Parts: sequence; C-alpha cells; structure tokens
Amino acid sequence: MPQYKAKVTVMFRKSILDPQGAAIERAVKSVEGDISFPDVSSVRVGKVVELIIDGLDAAVIEEKVKLLADRVLANTVMEQYVVEVEPFAGESCNGRE
Amino acid sequence: MPQYKAKVTVMFRKSILDPQGAAIERAVKSVEGDISFPDVSSVRVGKVVELIIDGLDAAVIEEKVKLLADRVLANTVMEQYVVEVEPFAGESCNGRE
Repeated sequence: MPQYKAKVTVMFRKSILDPQGAAIERAVKSVEGDISFPDVSSVRVGKVVELIIDGLDAAVIEEKVKLLADRVLANTVMEQYVVEVEPFAGESCNGRE
Repeated sequence: MPQYKAKVTVMFRKSILDPQGAAIERAVKSVEGDISFPDVSSVRVGKVVELIIDGLDAAVIEEKVKLLADRVLANTVMEQYVVEVEPFAGESCNGRE
C-alpha cells in the first residue's frame, strides 16, 4: 500500500503573544559577529508533527489528519494549523539534511 | 526593502529516539471513533521557527539563516534542520488558516 507523509504545522494565532519567538528575536538581534541579524522584524515559533500513513487516497488522509489536528494536535482556541500531505517514498520520517 | 520569510524546521535526527512523537503515535492509534488512525507507522515531532527578514537577496538571507540554525536554533549533535526562504507579502508571520 502506498505511504503518505502528513505534516501538521501548529503555531500560535497571530493575536496570541509568542514569548518564545520574542526571546529568539531578541537573541538573534543581539548576537555578535557574522550571524548578527538586525533586520529581523518578527519571529514566531511553532511545532511540527510528521506522520507516515498507509493509505490509498491522499484526499481522504488529508481530511482525517485535519480532524486529528483540530481535535488532538492543536488547541484551536490559541493555535492554528496547516496540513500538508505528500507521497512518501520510503526514506525515514525526517531523513533529510 | 523587500521582506522574506525564512522557515527553519528542526527535528531530531532519525537515529535519535523521539519520545514525544512515540507518545503521539500511540495516542493516535488508540483514539476511538472517526479520527482513529491504525495506519500510522511513524510520528516525529519537531519545532519550526519563522523569521521575517528585511533584505534584498534571498540567497544571502538563506546563507545567514543556515548559519543561525546551525549555531543557535538547532543542536546539530542531535537535531537536523531545513531552511526555506520565500518572499513575504505583508500578511502576518503566521497569518494562515
């Protein structure tokens, strides 16, 4: 059976303060040397969940993963999510550089 | 000056155990009803950092963000990262559904 990789990216809604992002922004702006980044204007942090799923129909999988994100993976009062589904060709779940 | 959105996705290397992913996998497999997902074979959890950066050259920004990811955002002993840079057209950092 073909496999699909579903990637769910969960981030705070834009109206919600993101203290972790704000901390990274301050750190990135104040770091010295060749990685100083004064031109950063906004940093937000989120989480990403990658699921490898056996199935025949990408559209069906996407619908199910959206339900799952809505009810389990994200707190939709404070967070929003994006679901991406793509065919998975056997390499490990995060087998990338 | 144009703005770019740099997205850094940081995940554990595949050789590193991901207990949070394993916990989600078990939860997803055991949940009852229309979101039950017996066909999930692997779940990995990571973090994503989105930075909005003022700059003229996407290639230069990508190089700098890679340095930043390498030295600040990821622990490369245990984690690997992917950097994506795309033009940013004004909506908020995570202004998406």
